[in-house]
Amino acid sequence: MSARIRIAVDAMSGDLGPRVAISAAQIFVGRYPDVDLLLVGDESKLLPLLLKDNFRHTRVSVHHAADVIAMGDDPLLAMRHKKNSSMWVALDQLRSGAVDACVSAGNTGALLAIARFLVKTFPGVDRPAICKSMPVDVGFTYMLDLGANINCTAEQLYQFAKMGNVLAKSTGLLSPRVALLNIGAEEQKGTEVLQVARQFIAEDSGINCTGFVEANAIFSGAADVIVCDGFHGNIALKASEGVARFIQKKIIKTARKNTLNKILSVLAYPLLRQLRQELDPSSYNGASLLGLQKTVIKSHGNANVNAFLHALIVAREQVVQKVPALIQKEFQSY
Amino acid sequence: MSARIRIAVDAMSGDLGPRVAISAAQIFVGRYPDVDLLLVGDESKLLPLLLKDNFRHTRVSVHHAADVIAMGDDPLLAMRHKKNSSMWVALDQLRSGAVDACVSAGNTGALLAIARFLVKTFPGVDRPAICKSMPVDVGFTYMLDLGANINCTAEQLYQFAKMGNVLAKSTGLLSPRVALLNIGAEEQKGTEVLQVARQFIAEDSGINCTGFVEANAIFSGAADVIVCDGFHGNIALKASEGVARFIQKKIIKTARKNTLNKILSVLAYPLLRQLRQELDPSSYNGASLLGLQKTVIKSHGNANVNAFLHALIVAREQVVQKVPALIQKEFQSY
Repeated sequence: MSARIRIAVDAMSGDLGPRVAISAAQIFVGRYPDVDLLLVGDESKLLPLLLKDNFRHTRVSVHHAADVIAMGDDPLLAMRHKKNSSMWVALDQLRSGAVDACVSAGNTGALLAIARFLVKTFPGVDRPAICKSMPVDVGFTYMLDLGANINCTAEQLYQFAKMGNVLAKSTGLLSPRVALLNIGAEEQKGTEVLQVARQFIAEDSGINCTGFVEANAIFSGAADVIVCDGFHGNIALKASEGVARFIQKKIIKTARKNTLNKILSVLAYPLLRQLRQELDPSSYNGASLLGLQKTVIKSHGNANVNAFLHALIVAREQVVQKVPALIQKEFQSY
Repeated sequence: MSARIRIAVDAMSGDLGPRVAISAAQIFVGRYPDVDLLLVGDESKLLPLLLKDNFRHTRVSVHHAADVIAMGDDPLLAMRHKKNSSMWVALDQLRSGAVDACVSAGNTGALLAIARFLVKTFPGVDRPAICKSMPVDVGFTYMLDLGANINCTAEQLYQFAKMGNVLAKSTGLLSPRVALLNIGAEEQKGTEVLQVARQFIAEDSGINCTGFVEANAIFSGAADVIVCDGFHGNIALKASEGVARFIQKKIIKTARKNTLNKILSVLAYPLLRQLRQELDPSSYNGASLLGLQKTVIKSHGNANVNAFLHALIVAREQVVQKVPALIQKEFQSY
């Protein structure tokens, strides 16, 4: 890694197209002078957008890639046939060492498949896990896997625990409390896979295993790292997003309910605005594909500029903290 | 069923003891003149509480049961050894036909086991499913199973779909949209069990099958009935509760953040109070154990008076709508 941090941005993928990536890039390089950005995608689309914005920056360059992987593309077919896609080319820049990290808002399955193929996992890591920090009262809970692996063995869950532990420690946390997601906190609860995984984690002297937690613990701060298979993680994550959106709507609706509420909400406007900002899911965008030999960050498919910006910030942090090297070290010692 | 509705209340179970059940009963009989309540539990504890409240009501009687099943008791041991418990006696009153429904805030596993033993499921129903209505912008989404069955076959998921469909229809909904919980809406997503279950449901001409939904659909109103196994349902439910609590705290915290916010929140107090009321999870308390031959409602273990009251209301509604008979009819026709 050079002294400067270089991040490749898959500028074409995602639901909202290159506009979001470019606007986020613009804010990002303004805020972090130690970063160079490589916008990967169709020059004939990116350059006019950059010109239109009058966005010329010595630390931002465009790397041409003619093709795009669509959100609905079959991941394996995309991997086989779309080697000129922005996602593939961005990850190939990461593989070659031209950049230190890659950020994409594209097709999750394709990103995982191509990243595994080009960037590879560390020896000892079966498969990468998607890890995200969820907000709690004070700080964050790191949760993985959030959808990369539908069925996991106990050994794989144990690997996730090790990686989550490393990530939480990299943020300065001492002895992170690592727990397994289950449908009850009692020892006898859950499936056999969970029982065995718990044993593996508890026997690892490097991990502060706190046993099982229920899904409400994700937001209570009862654990610093919550480990689960990708099916369960996806359900917990999507349910949470659904509730947050439901409540945001409720706030707006309540504020408009009747004349009194309308007057009150005008008076309390700064309060309600602040509340909605703090509840904005986009502030927590940017999931890590842990276990890969280099930093790959997945942004939400319909991320807005703020959300994409946050994914870029997460990428930079993990390069600075050398998270991949820390994970490699963790798996070497076994 | 007599013209009057008779409900047995397991008055001793739950985290908060008989006080909550008694207070809820008091409000409930005041509101619904067509209901008689049977409070089941230790007379030496219930009677003094009733006297203290000066609560004498011709439509409320006490039925003695000396024992209590604790929240932490092993369900099967409780079933074997606690035949004098308030839960067992209340369910036995239901079995004998002395009452039309039973409400308990006790140990979920024990309630399921004893209810299956005493009240029985209808022929064609393998196991009861826990079903709850989740609030959406307009109306509700019925979700099942929420924790009774950790591993489900495709056939069982199909049974849940039929029961959820009947329950949603009983509330007046025309052609409820029935969906399966998955980690993506695309047809090829998820496990084989889910694939087969989807086929079963889609082939049933009595069900309006809308395919797979992700967990955010629980609160978006994209489906009227969401079917899942108990593990996934529990995770979705608990994650949702966790987010709701997190956001409630956030509202309070934001309102107290600084002097300006404090002044604004005093001004907007009625608005914030209304918002917190509308977000109060206790308004949605009361889960049905569908598939049993009679109405059994599970209240949340730490339900407060309002929440317990809502569970009683749910029980009454299902008796009025004759939900068990409708489910029996559904399974007879196959």
